[in-house]
Amino acid sequence: MLEFELLATEGLARRGRLTLNHGVVETPVFMPVGTYGTVKGVLPRSLEEMGAQIILGNTFHLWLRPGLDVIKAFDGLHRFEGWRKPMLTDSGGFQVWSLGAMRKISEEGVRFASPVNGDKLFLTPEVSMQIQTVLDSDIVMQLDECTPYETEGRVTSEREARASMAMSLRWAQRSRDEFARLANRNALFGIVQGGMYEALREESAARLAELDLPGYAVGGVSVGEPKDEMRRIVAHTPRLLPANKPRYLMGVGTPEDLVDGVANGVDMFDCVMPTRNARNGHLFTRFGDLKIRNAKHRLDQRPLDPTCTCHTCANFSRAYLHHLERCGEMLAPMLASIHNLHYYLNLMREMREALEGGRFAAWRAQFESDRARGIDG
Amino acid sequence: MLEFELLATEGLARRGRLTLNHGVVETPVFMPVGTYGTVKGVLPRSLEEMGAQIILGNTFHLWLRPGLDVIKAFDGLHRFEGWRKPMLTDSGGFQVWSLGAMRKISEEGVRFASPVNGDKLFLTPEVSMQIQTVLDSDIVMQLDECTPYETEGRVTSEREARASMAMSLRWAQRSRDEFARLANRNALFGIVQGGMYEALREESAARLAELDLPGYAVGGVSVGEPKDEMRRIVAHTPRLLPANKPRYLMGVGTPEDLVDGVANGVDMFDCVMPTRNARNGHLFTRFGDLKIRNAKHRLDQRPLDPTCTCHTCANFSRAYLHHLERCGEMLAPMLASIHNLHYYLNLMREMREALEGGRFAAWRAQFESDRARGIDG
Repeated sequence: MLEFELLATEGLARRGRLTLNHGVVETPVFMPVGTYGTVKGVLPRSLEEMGAQIILGNTFHLWLRPGLDVIKAFDGLHRFEGWRKPMLTDSGGFQVWSLGAMRKISEEGVRFASPVNGDKLFLTPEVSMQIQTVLDSDIVMQLDECTPYETEGRVTSEREARASMAMSLRWAQRSRDEFARLANRNALFGIVQGGMYEALREESAARLAELDLPGYAVGGVSVGEPKDEMRRIVAHTPRLLPANKPRYLMGVGTPEDLVDGVANGVDMFDCVMPTRNARNGHLFTRFGDLKIRNAKHRLDQRPLDPTCTCHTCANFSRAYLHHLERCGEMLAPMLASIHNLHYYLNLMREMREALEGGRFAAWRAQFESDRARGIDG
Repeated sequence: MLEFELLATEGLARRGRLTLNHGVVETPVFMPVGTYGTVKGVLPRSLEEMGAQIILGNTFHLWLRPGLDVIKAFDGLHRFEGWRKPMLTDSGGFQVWSLGAMRKISEEGVRFASPVNGDKLFLTPEVSMQIQTVLDSDIVMQLDECTPYETEGRVTSEREARASMAMSLRWAQRSRDEFARLANRNALFGIVQGGMYEALREESAARLAELDLPGYAVGGVSVGEPKDEMRRIVAHTPRLLPANKPRYLMGVGTPEDLVDGVANGVDMFDCVMPTRNARNGHLFTRFGDLKIRNAKHRLDQRPLDPTCTCHTCANFSRAYLHHLERCGEMLAPMLASIHNLHYYLNLMREMREALEGGRFAAWRAQFESDRARGIDG
């Protein structure tokens, strides 16, 4: 099931509520990424405490490890990984696409060798639906082909992007048919492709809308294109999607990207950035970003962000985090991941509240000025 | 300050209560090791939840990183690492001893080059007291020389062990004098040495008792000697220490070693084993140990230990932990460390309760039969 209710709008920005089989999700929402059935370095209960409403799992990775027989024994991913709230799984398309020369894409699907054990595997729209049905994720993504920004060393041509987009549309239909045949109780999302070509994006969005799926995503952004190209697509495509359905911008991005996405009518986001950057000592704060390895933090008794209410900022100083990072202690990425995820989740919470109060524009101006101020300002 | 009260005894085993500047510690107690100001992979609040009463910090490591200027800025280790309960620090002696050829021991102290940056350093009893005063640990250990089990490829002779033990006694006096001069408000423990020679251990214990320190440790065990040699010393030395003062067996050991220590009158233990083994996928349970990487756990939906009340066993299966470990996910050592530490802390809790009820002997028989049963029995 999926129900989507729009509670407020301001310009293109939307404040909504998504009801899924495992619970309610207030939008706009950020979804922490739990590739292998764990958001790296974070206990599920910490995620709940910091207000995560829905997390993501990667179909490709979970198919390879632990394998479907294991997930099936647990009646799906929720009980296996100890997460009770909603979950979204991707289709595996992006990951097989990322294998590059190690995979072969045809109309039928994608052949590739498992990077784990070399097994020959074949991912089709039907297989993706079958896997995601075993995972029992609340939101299932269609298999799509991620149109690359560059093909053979030059920008992908409109002709190439059209062919790719058209195949993704056919895969959307096959995904929908198999999803129905499997009597999957969850919700299937279609994915708009079309590369950097707005006309193709429009065609993709219109054709997908005809399938009347419960939600839609914008895919094929943040795939190596220049930042202004990404922003152009984010400003163009989301508004073309059905207004009464949730809109998901896949794999994006920085705090600024999230705010820009919301301003353009996006409801859902996912990105590895908060957790990956945390593991590299790159921390997000209201007043700009901070590299915790920098020697200037050595004696700094302040929290990362004095306005932050996360477990890390409530209990630990920059000097302590700097020390842990320098010593290679596991607690460094643990505390940094808690902080960065809390920052992202709180950012969305602030946007939801601003939208409820009809003051999103003012909030955004403050956000931009705070972020530009710099953390030591 | 330090107050020690004996609440119950059974044979040589003791149930006591230790009152320190940062709180009360029920004994017998296990102290998780937080070398660099963090118990590896565990949030301080998780330690509190699982009932840790006192944790250990390593003087040698903290002296080198983050350095005393940092700890001083935080008025000691407690606020720096966000731990409110009691803390014990070692003297740094064991760590410089472990440097082997890289250090030179003389009557005055130990010269060595910092393994972090090559700085020439000199650790004396006085320096150790000065560092531990900055750390402001509730229990301070004297600087001692850890008599090795082997010297130049053969078992250390009685003559060598005597010379080493005698120097540790002189270092105890120097530690006590400097501790007093610094007006340290905490409690200084002396350390019995003497290698594998019972007569030397007796002399060391008697001479240390004359110093009337608030507590005593048995050092120089678990330093490469055969297991039955260790057990012989653990059966011999603790009972020689003043009955009205806490007794600490340093760096020991397995669950069986802890039970054996308690049976011989030991009140306090520390060991890296629960956390280090956790990071290697070696898990302790009531019914024996378990290697989580073993393929037999792949589909096992049971918790590690059905009788365990830790966060890991309450929420996650062996199959999930096996999967995390195989994928190299950080959550694997995190959850394993929680479980192993909880196991150790709960083991001590069970011993305290058995001693209160005068049923330690019966408890021990059950412990041994349970542990021998095997986890899949």
